[in-house]
Amino acid sequence: MWEKIVECVPNVSEGRNQETIRALAAALERVSEIKLLDVESDPDHNRSVFTFAGTPEGVKAAVMALFAAALPRIDLRKHRGEHPRMGAVDVVPFVPVRGVTMEDCVILSREVGQGIWERFQVPVYLYANSATRPEREDLAAIRKGEFEGFFEKIKDPAWAPDFGEPEVHPTAGVVAVGAREFLIAYNVYLNTDDVRIAKAIARAIRGSSGGLRYVKALGFEIKERGLVQVSMNLTNYKKTPIPRVLELIRREAARYGVSVVESEIVGLVPQGALDQVVEYYLQLPRLEPQMVFERRLEEALKG
Amino acid sequence: MWEKIVECVPNVSEGRNQETIRALAAALERVSEIKLLDVESDPDHNRSVFTFAGTPEGVKAAVMALFAAALPRIDLRKHRGEHPRMGAVDVVPFVPVRGVTMEDCVILSREVGQGIWERFQVPVYLYANSATRPEREDLAAIRKGEFEGFFEKIKDPAWAPDFGEPEVHPTAGVVAVGAREFLIAYNVYLNTDDVRIAKAIARAIRGSSGGLRYVKALGFEIKERGLVQVSMNLTNYKKTPIPRVLELIRREAARYGVSVVESEIVGLVPQGALDQVVEYYLQLPRLEPQMVFERRLEEALKG
Repeated sequence: MWEKIVECVPNVSEGRNQETIRALAAALERVSEIKLLDVESDPDHNRSVFTFAGTPEGVKAAVMALFAAALPRIDLRKHRGEHPRMGAVDVVPFVPVRGVTMEDCVILSREVGQGIWERFQVPVYLYANSATRPEREDLAAIRKGEFEGFFEKIKDPAWAPDFGEPEVHPTAGVVAVGAREFLIAYNVYLNTDDVRIAKAIARAIRGSSGGLRYVKALGFEIKERGLVQVSMNLTNYKKTPIPRVLELIRREAARYGVSVVESEIVGLVPQGALDQVVEYYLQLPRLEPQMVFERRLEEALKG
Repeated sequence: MWEKIVECVPNVSEGRNQETIRALAAALERVSEIKLLDVESDPDHNRSVFTFAGTPEGVKAAVMALFAAALPRIDLRKHRGEHPRMGAVDVVPFVPVRGVTMEDCVILSREVGQGIWERFQVPVYLYANSATRPEREDLAAIRKGEFEGFFEKIKDPAWAPDFGEPEVHPTAGVVAVGAREFLIAYNVYLNTDDVRIAKAIARAIRGSSGGLRYVKALGFEIKERGLVQVSMNLTNYKKTPIPRVLELIRREAARYGVSVVESEIVGLVPQGALDQVVEYYLQLPRLEPQMVFERRLEEALKG
């Protein structure tokens, strides 16, 4: 295992053409010092999410390889999909996993941003922890107007790119690059078919409307199961841990006489977020990695 | 990482002489295909527990190396300690961890048992899942009478050893060897100083008095903290998982108006037992290993 590990989760504006998706995955797989862990494509969104991890140098090379493969294949002028987008490669987040700090990932995002502009002439916006202005922390604010609107938006000095001239790439648009915490997609199912309850709970628990700071939440009806779902993104599990979110949902649900049927983690979750769950419910002062047989053995085999 | 992994946790009747303990640890560390993970010595018990893991062949070689190092150094005729014992190397449990079944460990225990007798002339009793008679499943039943009593006990045909002549080794006694599940030492603290409550809860939850099958439990007073403790060995976490034990303790404690202050895992716990905790409290239908970032990456790096 590498000493330093960064996760990178670029979102690309192509979720239908399998040949293109395969070509991008193949380009990533040719990069040494990274491993491609997951590819999720959504045809309705017309968007694919590539998850890979590797050394800082490997991850940097992989982003370049992804751009080199995506630009000749994706033309945003012809792109239609439900998900908002502003770039062929729409957003490139870097997540510190092991042996690297958030600050290291901010520096990495700047180096990558500069590289993208210099090599591909795609203007770059630094977002999340890498943002150079508060209004650029939120990806949705940057992306507002989308590809089509950016030809005007980029001329506004307030929206001058962090790297590059204020000129939208004709087919690849612009891109957001930044460092952020691991994002956990977490859903909780409730034993009611009244979607208003899910929406009310989502409103109660999400940061934007007064709830937990690092929770984004929406309420949905899940017709085929006769249930509703509180669907969440947890944007900083270290500060807003899964068990606290779930217990708050339980309390809110109790107000309406409903209860939690099950929960689900969509995609990948870091081990540290599961360790928090164990600590919380078992009331362990601390779960040390060396208490876990497999981790102790792994350490012993390394040393 | 090895394809097949067995854990082995021999208990040795020496917990005071550091030179001897170091010599035994050094003997284990010289064996290839195993890693020594932990050594815990208790001077009051005058007993040390060595935890190591490795391939079946490695573990077999390590047990032989441990006997070779222990026999010239430990003389049970001079051994005193609080913990009952019948052998210089008192008990040798094998635990299936990865790529091996319980049956594989039973076979391994028989091979090791035969080797111990042939090479060291120490009579061997197969216990736990390796037991050849129901009354030998329980280690305490075999050990009853201890080293001093075994010179008579071994002559009883009901207590003929599984390997070897019915003749106690003059300084090393006899040994129990067997395959068992991972044993988790788990304690729960309650906010009362009334030890009768801890004892009553221990009685309610342990298998021997009508509680959960794979729980052994005792109640203790923890004077320095002004609390009591339910102290447990969980002998099969797959069938009696930690969260079910903890929730039963919570319910029993509520009868007395007391509650859980914290819990603790002593020594090593397998990842699978913690995954059960996550599944139980998050109400996840199943926590798949490939959902966890670090495990997915580890798999990707292997493949």
